Amino acid sequence: MGAVAATFEMAGFRALLELADDALILGHRLSEWCGHAPTLEEDLALANMGLDLLGQARALYAHAGEIEGKGRGEDDLAFLRRERDYVNCLLVERPNGDFAATMARQLYFAAFMHPFWRAIAASSNDATLAGIAAKAEKEMAYHLRHCGEWVIRLGDGTAESARRMQAAVDELHRYTGELFEASPVREKAVADGLLPDPGTVRAEWERTIAMVFSQAGLTAPEVRVPQSGGREGLHGEDMGHLLAEMQFMQRAYPGLTW
Amino acid sequence: MGAVAATFEMAGFRALLELADDALILGHRLSEWCGHAPTLEEDLALANMGLDLLGQARALYAHAGEIEGKGRGEDDLAFLRRERDYVNCLLVERPNGDFAATMARQLYFAAFMHPFWRAIAASSNDATLAGIAAKAEKEMAYHLRHCGEWVIRLGDGTAESARRMQAAVDELHRYTGELFEASPVREKAVADGLLPDPGTVRAEWERTIAMVFSQAGLTAPEVRVPQSGGREGLHGEDMGHLLAEMQFMQRAYPGLTW
Repeated sequence: MGAVAATFEMAGFRALLELADDALILGHRLSEWCGHAPTLEEDLALANMGLDLLGQARALYAHAGEIEGKGRGEDDLAFLRRERDYVNCLLVERPNGDFAATMARQLYFAAFMHPFWRAIAASSNDATLAGIAAKAEKEMAYHLRHCGEWVIRLGDGTAESARRMQAAVDELHRYTGELFEASPVREKAVADGLLPDPGTVRAEWERTIAMVFSQAGLTAPEVRVPQSGGREGLHGEDMGHLLAEMQFMQRAYPGLTW
Repeated sequence: MGAVAATFEMAGFRALLELADDALILGHRLSEWCGHAPTLEEDLALANMGLDLLGQARALYAHAGEIEGKGRGEDDLAFLRRERDYVNCLLVERPNGDFAATMARQLYFAAFMHPFWRAIAASSNDATLAGIAAKAEKEMAYHLRHCGEWVIRLGDGTAESARRMQAAVDELHRYTGELFEASPVREKAVADGLLPDPGTVRAEWERTIAMVFSQAGLTAPEVRVPQSGGREGLHGEDMGHLLAEMQFMQRAYPGLTW
């Protein structure tokens, strides 16, 4: 009984951590745009999307810490782990690149998370997670609409904007398969009723992307070598730079109680 | 008649630009904290305060552009002027320094803008500006409360936090006098009923600061050499770095229509 409970708690903790790390890392990436977006309006939109994600991360880390039961709070989990302990997918850690790449990355992610949060809200046996999901679903609906519009506008824009948007898609598409992969520990969380299988929203994701690409005049590239490994803590070299910057304050002033 | 109207419009345009530049530059400073605040919660609070200010700046630039009537929009005014053409006060361009300095700067500013926006909302003969002011007053009430609490918590905290907070106050207090200065062009806008005289809220500002400092155990330093000049476009050397970073996107991609 104790061992089963412990396994369940580990699987639940880890599944929440995947969701939280995705939100934290992508939120941090969006916050890197602050003051650098092409217009004031878009500066605010990017910052607001970043804040949505950081808010989701906070709620998820706090709940993960409760499930873990070792006294780790949201800041311990967000800031004080080593690179190998972060289990975000590779898509969210990709560098911002140009505005087209940031919009493509956000579209890919939101087209997945919007239906996934909806499915979590509808099916999770964890009331706290279902509540987080209900709020996050609404936020991701906005991200999906906003970024979908930009991808269409740029893909169907000038020769230069279309070239850049196609280049962004060509670069990022290979990272999208990882969104639907189920690690053994996530399969346990699925079996326990905490989360639905991410594979159940794949068809909806594919329809969304196909519809946007069709309006944008973009072509989804054939992916020869799908990229994954983030869920096992195997990250790209950009992740180290991101963490160095993100963790600087906590590492420089441990506990930060001064 | 035409000349009087032109003068009025110049004064109104310039007075709005002062308010807008204050909000833009301080909003940009707060956005520099993104991902570097001591906790996730405070990261979100700083980002939200930055967004409040950038939102105020957008509304003010858009209205200033209408008053100017030369077809300049919010992004032209926010991004495409030279350093000497920015008329923000020096306080808002001061570098972030440590968390204590950022909180002290924000307290000084919010303790001024909160009553100033209230006075503008109550007295301006410009309905658009009165509307912007009514919203901004509520936002600055939050900034004032949030930063006041931090200044008290740190000033009345450990020996180290109290030392840092006093150092922040010692450094920044000299920049506060400029908040209440009225340039000739602002005096014209005051006479025309667009704005109240900022001097009318000085007593309330002094009471607020005295109350916070008393609870925080801080001492307001004697200011021997008050710093000003920002309203005439005379900025400190940090302003150039800030603009270089903020304007990079617009300068690199003029018009940004790609």
